[in-house]
Amino acid sequence: MSGAPNTTTASAGLVDELVDANHILHQQGIVDAFGHVSVRHDRDAGRFLLARNMAPARVQAADILEYAVDSGEALAPDPPRLYLERHIHSEIYRARPDVMAVVHNHSPAVLPFCVARGATLKPVCHMAGFLGGSDARDGPALFEIRGHAGPATDLLIRNRELGAALASSLARSRVVLMRGHGCTVVGPSLPVAVYRAVYTEVNAKLMLQALPLGEVIALTPEEADATRVTNEGQVMRPWQLWREQVRRPRGPAV
Amino acid sequence: MSGAPNTTTASAGLVDELVDANHILHQQGIVDAFGHVSVRHDRDAGRFLLARNMAPARVQAADILEYAVDSGEALAPDPPRLYLERHIHSEIYRARPDVMAVVHNHSPAVLPFCVARGATLKPVCHMAGFLGGSDARDGPALFEIRGHAGPATDLLIRNRELGAALASSLARSRVVLMRGHGCTVVGPSLPVAVYRAVYTEVNAKLMLQALPLGEVIALTPEEADATRVTNEGQVMRPWQLWREQVRRPRGPAV
Amino acid sequence: MSGAPNTTTASAGLVDELVDANHILHQQGIVDAFGHVSVRHDRDAGRFLLARNMAPARVQAADILEYAVDSGEALAPDPPRLYLERHIHSEIYRARPDVMAVVHNHSPAVLPFCVARGATLKPVCHMAGFLGGSDARDGPALFEIRGHAGPATDLLIRNRELGAALASSLARSRVVLMRGHGCTVVGPSLPVAVYRAVYTEVNAKLMLQALPLGEVIALTPEEADATRVTNEGQVMRPWQLWREQVRRPRGPAV
Amino acid sequence: MSGAPNTTTASAGLVDELVDANHILHQQGIVDAFGHVSVRHDRDAGRFLLARNMAPARVQAADILEYAVDSGEALAPDPPRLYLERHIHSEIYRARPDVMAVVHNHSPAVLPFCVARGATLKPVCHMAGFLGGSDARDGPALFEIRGHAGPATDLLIRNRELGAALASSLARSRVVLMRGHGCTVVGPSLPVAVYRAVYTEVNAKLMLQALPLGEVIALTPEEADATRVTNEGQVMRPWQLWREQVRRPRGPAV
Repeated sequence: MSGAPNTTTASAGLVDELVDANHILHQQGIVDAFGHVSVRHDRDAGRFLLARNMAPARVQAADILEYAVDSGEALAPDPPRLYLERHIHSEIYRARPDVMAVVHNHSPAVLPFCVARGATLKPVCHMAGFLGGSDARDGPALFEIRGHAGPATDLLIRNRELGAALASSLARSRVVLMRGHGCTVVGPSLPVAVYRAVYTEVNAKLMLQALPLGEVIALTPEEADATRVTNEGQVMRPWQLWREQVRRPRGPAV
Repeated sequence: MSGAPNTTTASAGLVDELVDANHILHQQGIVDAFGHVSVRHDRDAGRFLLARNMAPARVQAADILEYAVDSGEALAPDPPRLYLERHIHSEIYRARPDVMAVVHNHSPAVLPFCVARGATLKPVCHMAGFLGGSDARDGPALFEIRGHAGPATDLLIRNRELGAALASSLARSRVVLMRGHGCTVVGPSLPVAVYRAVYTEVNAKLMLQALPLGEVIALTPEEADATRVTNEGQVMRPWQLWREQVRRPRGPAV
Repeated sequence: MSGAPNTTTASAGLVDELVDANHILHQQGIVDAFGHVSVRHDRDAGRFLLARNMAPARVQAADILEYAVDSGEALAPDPPRLYLERHIHSEIYRARPDVMAVVHNHSPAVLPFCVARGATLKPVCHMAGFLGGSDARDGPALFEIRGHAGPATDLLIRNRELGAALASSLARSRVVLMRGHGCTVVGPSLPVAVYRAVYTEVNAKLMLQALPLGEVIALTPEEADATRVTNEGQVMRPWQLWREQVRRPRGPAV
Repeated sequence: MSGAPNTTTASAGLVDELVDANHILHQQGIVDAFGHVSVRHDRDAGRFLLARNMAPARVQAADILEYAVDSGEALAPDPPRLYLERHIHSEIYRARPDVMAVVHNHSPAVLPFCVARGATLKPVCHMAGFLGGSDARDGPALFEIRGHAGPATDLLIRNRELGAALASSLARSRVVLMRGHGCTVVGPSLPVAVYRAVYTEVNAKLMLQALPLGEVIALTPEEADATRVTNEGQVMRPWQLWREQVRRPRGPAV
């Protein structure tokens, strides 16, 4: 579908799925011209796939590059311009062997929880149980880059050290918020990581609207775990819809 | 219009109307990849029609199955994957012979009223009188699944018992809210049930915006009853528009 | 453009403008399947043009009927189904010879000001000076139907008496709010009435977002008058854009 | 792409970029039928390019005129109707030789900060560092026209004196808010000025949603400067996407 050759050693199906994921995240309003999504290589756990530096909506198969998990650098000699924040991906893959896909975005309803002191994002609807549960009792952690690199950075995860610090904040959970910046979401597959990025936004928007009405009832940790297991068993339902939406013959995903 | 054969014993017109209802609910933003809509069989009140497990925007006539009201199970041998929550539909049809169509959704402006303690959804505009009136004086009830199945469920209406409990919360009214989950809306026909689902969302969004401005003036029960009767006599006005919007030759409803 | 014959005695240009106005109001989100727009007949001030009972987005020239200002009834014998609220239009044309066009809608950001006790809509940006000024010092009045027909109506302006009461609330101003219902906007031409309906919504949305930030600075009456005169001298700028948007060959306005 | 001849002495590439900028600002929701964007002439710093009086979405190359920075007037004899507020552009180019492009708009989430007394727009996310930093410590200034021309104007920047007053409020910063009106954004190129207009809106919407959650953490001046430098080095990433979106063969930008 991408009209361009697969230039990686990964399976063509995985590359196509990554192209779809880029387009879906744009179509769902989770990324604008910024943000990125990667997937671990399906034939070498020490590598991952990520586009070159470009807007997700424009990514085609030929734009996908291979990177080394160890270094966060592209494997091809003389690569094109890369995302400055590729170390978000590499360091999370290094710290979390269970993670197969990573989404980084500036999702609009999530950002308020990244800039308001003391605000906490909790799972309040059954579609977003993955935000809590036994691995993330209090909801996503907030990564404050000032605690790692001082008060004068450009807020980007520009190097391995900052990537490792972010992965440490993420710990065993599925979402980490980044002060003044956005969030990073992980999953055991591209469809699940994209699902989680979409419903992190849905749950955040819901909290923004519910907080003025009264005390918000969060899912119990047990409800969060149970809803996560159930809903992620249904993940092909949204994925098939979203894929159809971005592959329609009416033009590119943009 | 659906490009696929009707596989039920119901009239072809009813199946087409159900396909339209699926697409309209998506196009109006009432369902995303989740949620479902059913209609009682027009030749056998002990049956109802509901799609197989898939996103509403993708449903075509061949995806519509027949279910037994008594059991909530598909009548065909060896059915495809079904919605886990089909018991919402079956138990409401069992408890309410007047109900001919059921919509279950996670409508975005309604959800805040499902997660904030003490928030109440009341009819405040004349398009949503069906939320109150003599059958539902205080607006829709809130179904708390913890009261029926404890604090560790996946929040889904997975079996007949939970379906019956939900139908009991619905009682004689037209909408029931479900804590942390969404809502279920019923009607005497598909167009009316879809109309009510759409304007439950409109009224909820209106309340979210009005509450910060001051005390909100609800319709009196008499106003609610009178507006319901008037507006539902106009239901073909939106239905014809919505049907045109989803049947346009520009591609599928997605 | 409408692909259907003009069946009125008004000029074809006026009928086409009314068809455009119907489509523009839908495309701009000011009406959904409900709401209506009329224009005074350009060859007989005792008549006005209004569609038959249907969603504005679907109106074509053949759907436009002539009505008598005096009675609010269609002039053709055996007319099709009419809008229940045509008396909004007739009674305002009767009371206000300066009014050439009337829009009635349930505009989403305006409705909160129609249901929250004590909320007042004031002109706060220069595009909406018409909401205030020397003819409407305190912003639009709120019409409470309970004061005229008691607490058990369906809120509709169903007869000449209620239409006259609404026109009396409108007085010399340009917009009147209707409790639990919507608003009615008038103007000296269709483009100006449509402009005012659109920017009543814009100004209302702006107030909803500004009120939580602090005391809102309204335009002075002199600013309101001056901005109204200036902006309405520019009204063909939006009208030409909007007309292009609804006349594009990509399909009907819906 | 514009299907019309370049009638200026500037390079064709610059004229095309200005046409794109008009369409992008509309497509991104930063302008509606009102607002305008200009660029300094690339062969004569004493001139600038700006469309004739029309909605930005409709602008084509033949609609672009040359203006004198000194007078704010069109250079062609007998010009078509001009924007009343062209002096916003001319006076800023006069006061700020570093400015190469100017956007004036009524961006919806920015307007609340232009009408609520005491509200302040600060950079809170890394995409909008340009709102603060060493040149604009407290965020954009608010221009109150009443302080310059009294309480009875139409709020427009109608002459050189008001343009100069606005340029003085802008000072060395990149954005100036205008009470009851909108904002003006400047940059060293069209892509950067458009980027800043878009992310001023994004940051404003973020603040509107974050303020109810608690104290909002602004970027430090050092973070604002660093993020501005980094992100504006990435400006072709959104620009390429946006240009593709408005140049798609699916019809005009409207």
